[in-house]
Amino acid sequence: MAEYKAPERDIKFALRNVLNVDQLAELDVFADATPDIIDGVIDEAAKFIEARLLPLRESGDAQGCKVADNVVTVPDGYAEAYRDFVESGWVGLCNDPQWGGQGLPYTLSKVVEEMTCAANVAFDLYPSLTNGCFEALQAHASDEQKATYLPKLGTGEWTGTMCITEPQAGSDLAAVRTKAVKQADGSYRISGMKIFITSGEHEMTDNIVHYVLARCDDSPEGIKGLSTFIVPKYLVNSDGSLGERNPVKCQAIEHKMGINASVTCVMVFEEAIGYLVGDQNRGIMNMFTMMNLARIMVGYQGLGQAELATQNAIRYAKERIQGKTLTGGDGPIADHPDVRRMLMTMKAYTEAARVMAYETAIHVDLAHQHPDASVREDANDWVELTTPLVKAFCTDLAVENGSSAIQVYGGHGFIKEHGIEQIVRDSKILCLYEGTNGIQAMDLVRRKLQLHGGRLAQRFFDRVRVAINDAESELDFISAPLDRALTALEATTQWLRDRFNDNPNDAGAGAVQYQRAFALTMLGYNWLRMADAALAYTDDADFKAAKLATARFFATRLLPEVHSLLEAVEAGDNGMMDLALDAL
Amino acid sequence: MAEYKAPERDIKFALRNVLNVDQLAELDVFADATPDIIDGVIDEAAKFIEARLLPLRESGDAQGCKVADNVVTVPDGYAEAYRDFVESGWVGLCNDPQWGGQGLPYTLSKVVEEMTCAANVAFDLYPSLTNGCFEALQAHASDEQKATYLPKLGTGEWTGTMCITEPQAGSDLAAVRTKAVKQADGSYRISGMKIFITSGEHEMTDNIVHYVLARCDDSPEGIKGLSTFIVPKYLVNSDGSLGERNPVKCQAIEHKMGINASVTCVMVFEEAIGYLVGDQNRGIMNMFTMMNLARIMVGYQGLGQAELATQNAIRYAKERIQGKTLTGGDGPIADHPDVRRMLMTMKAYTEAARVMAYETAIHVDLAHQHPDASVREDANDWVELTTPLVKAFCTDLAVENGSSAIQVYGGHGFIKEHGIEQIVRDSKILCLYEGTNGIQAMDLVRRKLQLHGGRLAQRFFDRVRVAINDAESELDFISAPLDRALTALEATTQWLRDRFNDNPNDAGAGAVQYQRAFALTMLGYNWLRMADAALAYTDDADFKAAKLATARFFATRLLPEVHSLLEAVEAGDNGMMDLALDAL
Repeated sequence: MAEYKAPERDIKFALRNVLNVDQLAELDVFADATPDIIDGVIDEAAKFIEARLLPLRESGDAQGCKVADNVVTVPDGYAEAYRDFVESGWVGLCNDPQWGGQGLPYTLSKVVEEMTCAANVAFDLYPSLTNGCFEALQAHASDEQKATYLPKLGTGEWTGTMCITEPQAGSDLAAVRTKAVKQADGSYRISGMKIFITSGEHEMTDNIVHYVLARCDDSPEGIKGLSTFIVPKYLVNSDGSLGERNPVKCQAIEHKMGINASVTCVMVFEEAIGYLVGDQNRGIMNMFTMMNLARIMVGYQGLGQAELATQNAIRYAKERIQGKTLTGGDGPIADHPDVRRMLMTMKAYTEAARVMAYETAIHVDLAHQHPDASVREDANDWVELTTPLVKAFCTDLAVENGSSAIQVYGGHGFIKEHGIEQIVRDSKILCLYEGTNGIQAMDLVRRKLQLHGGRLAQRFFDRVRVAINDAESELDFISAPLDRALTALEATTQWLRDRFNDNPNDAGAGAVQYQRAFALTMLGYNWLRMADAALAYTDDADFKAAKLATARFFATRLLPEVHSLLEAVEAGDNGMMDLALDAL
Repeated sequence: MAEYKAPERDIKFALRNVLNVDQLAELDVFADATPDIIDGVIDEAAKFIEARLLPLRESGDAQGCKVADNVVTVPDGYAEAYRDFVESGWVGLCNDPQWGGQGLPYTLSKVVEEMTCAANVAFDLYPSLTNGCFEALQAHASDEQKATYLPKLGTGEWTGTMCITEPQAGSDLAAVRTKAVKQADGSYRISGMKIFITSGEHEMTDNIVHYVLARCDDSPEGIKGLSTFIVPKYLVNSDGSLGERNPVKCQAIEHKMGINASVTCVMVFEEAIGYLVGDQNRGIMNMFTMMNLARIMVGYQGLGQAELATQNAIRYAKERIQGKTLTGGDGPIADHPDVRRMLMTMKAYTEAARVMAYETAIHVDLAHQHPDASVREDANDWVELTTPLVKAFCTDLAVENGSSAIQVYGGHGFIKEHGIEQIVRDSKILCLYEGTNGIQAMDLVRRKLQLHGGRLAQRFFDRVRVAINDAESELDFISAPLDRALTALEATTQWLRDRFNDNPNDAGAGAVQYQRAFALTMLGYNWLRMADAALAYTDDADFKAAKLATARFFATRLLPEVHSLLEAVEAGDNGMMDLALDAL
């Protein structure tokens, strides 16, 4: 069985020694988020997650979900774990106290989500989709709608869904066909089929709130004719009690590569009663407001799985003895250089990805809550720029680390009993949903680089340049290669922005490699800051030594990839798009 | 469901336009292997494989194998398919006619194996382990043993196994504990437990021949105390009829990430009767003789799965419509540059890997059968050098392509119904068995680079240099970057050989990256030759255009990785091994 111990020391190092999370407590709204509270929440969450969610990870995978007569059964133990997760307040950690939440920083809720996803990423989908639905309604619903749904969604007492995808409408939402017809009483009748609906049906809670993208019968075709609706599983009476069952049904569930404990439904709406959220034809805008948060959430799912892979591989490699080392020693396989390389690679990516993900979360808090508009703007730029990086890099990393962990385990990694191959199976979906990682790259290149005349990337480059210039000379081992990577990234960024106007296929052809090069440069910046913080770290000599050795490893062995990636980017389309489809 | 159409045009292009497979027919022993025969065998094999093996791929995965009371049941249809595979002569295609084979070139049997593995890699393990057992006995068994077992193994009428691994002895065979005690009649009693035994037990054939690595009770500890034994499931009477059931039993089967239609057994030997093969204490040498062939076989499994992923991704991307292209077109997703990039990447790696794998196979034939000793030596050098490359690169590629194919399919790739996620699950084991891909890299760096004063690599470098110098100027687009890659590879090769003596950890730390850089350079060499052959190709304009466009794509977008890989290699251990285990 895979083990998981929340990496609290590294979490706190990233939050405090590298990123100054305590600045959030200076904001009035987060006055309660003192260092003690933050540490206490992390400790308590770790205990719950290790004790209650981890043990269900492999059993839930083996058992999976079932559907019969439109009724879904989740694996044993999940309903009880979800109930206790709700009762312990983990769903509403960062939600507005007005809606039953605890009003703590979003950042802290993401740290808890990283741990939840490490222990049981399939479980995380129940609360995280609920939070997505909550956020959407909080942003766009009427006061009456909020009063009806948010107190239950804000705590997790009811769960929520996002009903977006249809068979012909995956990445292309313009093709959505689900129909909404207005009734005399102002409500709508919703008809159509939605697929890939996470938590679409189950019996764990009294009600489920579907947030549905549909097209009013008098709306135009295309992306500008879509609207969003609330469609509750059970109608809610005016006194808050539950009324009739709404005709929205789970017709089938998907059999998947992984996240088997999370139910993925084909949902059929048969003139189900729905309520328009916000204005008609503003559905896509209503979706976009929460898309960044949803993508960051998926990034944290990846981060958790990447950590799970890393710590199990390290533990196993320290225990498993096989043959002599290259220098004739009797040490475990962690003393074999190729195994050590894999462990260091996993550590180097994961720890720096943690800083990246946390920094984005802190900027979400600043962008939403800081009193100074210029700080909010700067923070928002950071969030916009780094969201695709967090989503794509952390999720690719989860699969990569899962695959590396299997290599460390050898043949034992391929059999189910160790719970390691499950990491690859559970993580692969993260690279697909909320926009495939290719779509993240297109968002970075087509949209984020173009915004405000390139301001977002420029602000990032300026920050990194300052850090390089300020670095102490004993950190030359990383600041020098980071300087080269940054210079190359800046040049290719300019090339991409230029080419995008002349031949967008040139930009599209290299978008994924550019995204990875950008993320690696950011990871280099994070390792520079981690190494700097480690120099001053006195609590634990081993931890300090590991940070400095891993920074050195990253700088010399992983960061150079930036240059070959950017060389490939600048090759552009190079005739690739001219090849006829029949010749492929 | 995944589809598979044998890529006969590309197979024949690689064999004939690039590699001159017809030189084999000039050898007396292969006089029958005329172009017509070769093409005819490929056509017939493709028909059988597409019609009989592909349809069992997904059903076999879903159903898996079962064990009850030591009796193993394989999925529906497998016994019949195996019987017909045997009756059609596919098992013995390249085996000596003396033992029921057809005596065709090994190369041709590998081409058939690529197709078999594309359609159903789990099925392939039944004949391929049988061939491994056959080859081992052919090389080391006594005439009497050969007469008893080879006629049945050579046709596949009986299947064979390799019983090597034990719980404490995976990569480290010195730790093998299975015991052999000599009896008065010259036979042995074998006792112990073996794990991960592919095809260890089933009812598809009348008998199973286990080839077992064990330690005689009077042999020393360690690697030099091991011997090999034949342990038949049913004892064979002197008239060839089957006698008593030998006490070698399947105690349990493994539940795995993939290849579920292939049974993986825990085998228990309870004083089973065994027969020593070759001399006592020569077991490891007996294993090594067939290790190259086994590793090449696994490489072909990877090649087949890589092809399966590629052709399904291309087909789906040509059919699936989602949104507008970047230039405003209505084409399918294959016209989106990031999807096109994925398709071209899969094609570029897979087609060049095919040439690599075929070239190694042709050199196996030459090394075994050519009358001129210097040709045999040269061919054997090629086989030794390229075996780890074929094994590691093709199997990593299978997982990579499987993962890319899922990305092309989007969320649909994650659900089982399309048969695409199965590629990743079936392929991951290929990176582990017959020596993990890290062990392949150590074999390359520690052994193959050191042999004969570095002659193996030097001969390769010389061949590539000649091809670069001879290339027509219209191929500068690939010969120039290949020249740079080769120069860098030569320099790092020298660095590695030097460092290996001073600090073996320096060499070990970068072995995997070096192996990939070496393989990419070889793929560049293959693309140079494919582009050259394409210039003269007149049969099909689309095929020619695709070859040239893919060569250009490889040269500009994939080959540059060589430089960042080699930069990482030359970073060496860099303090990584000094980090205390407790600090990891």
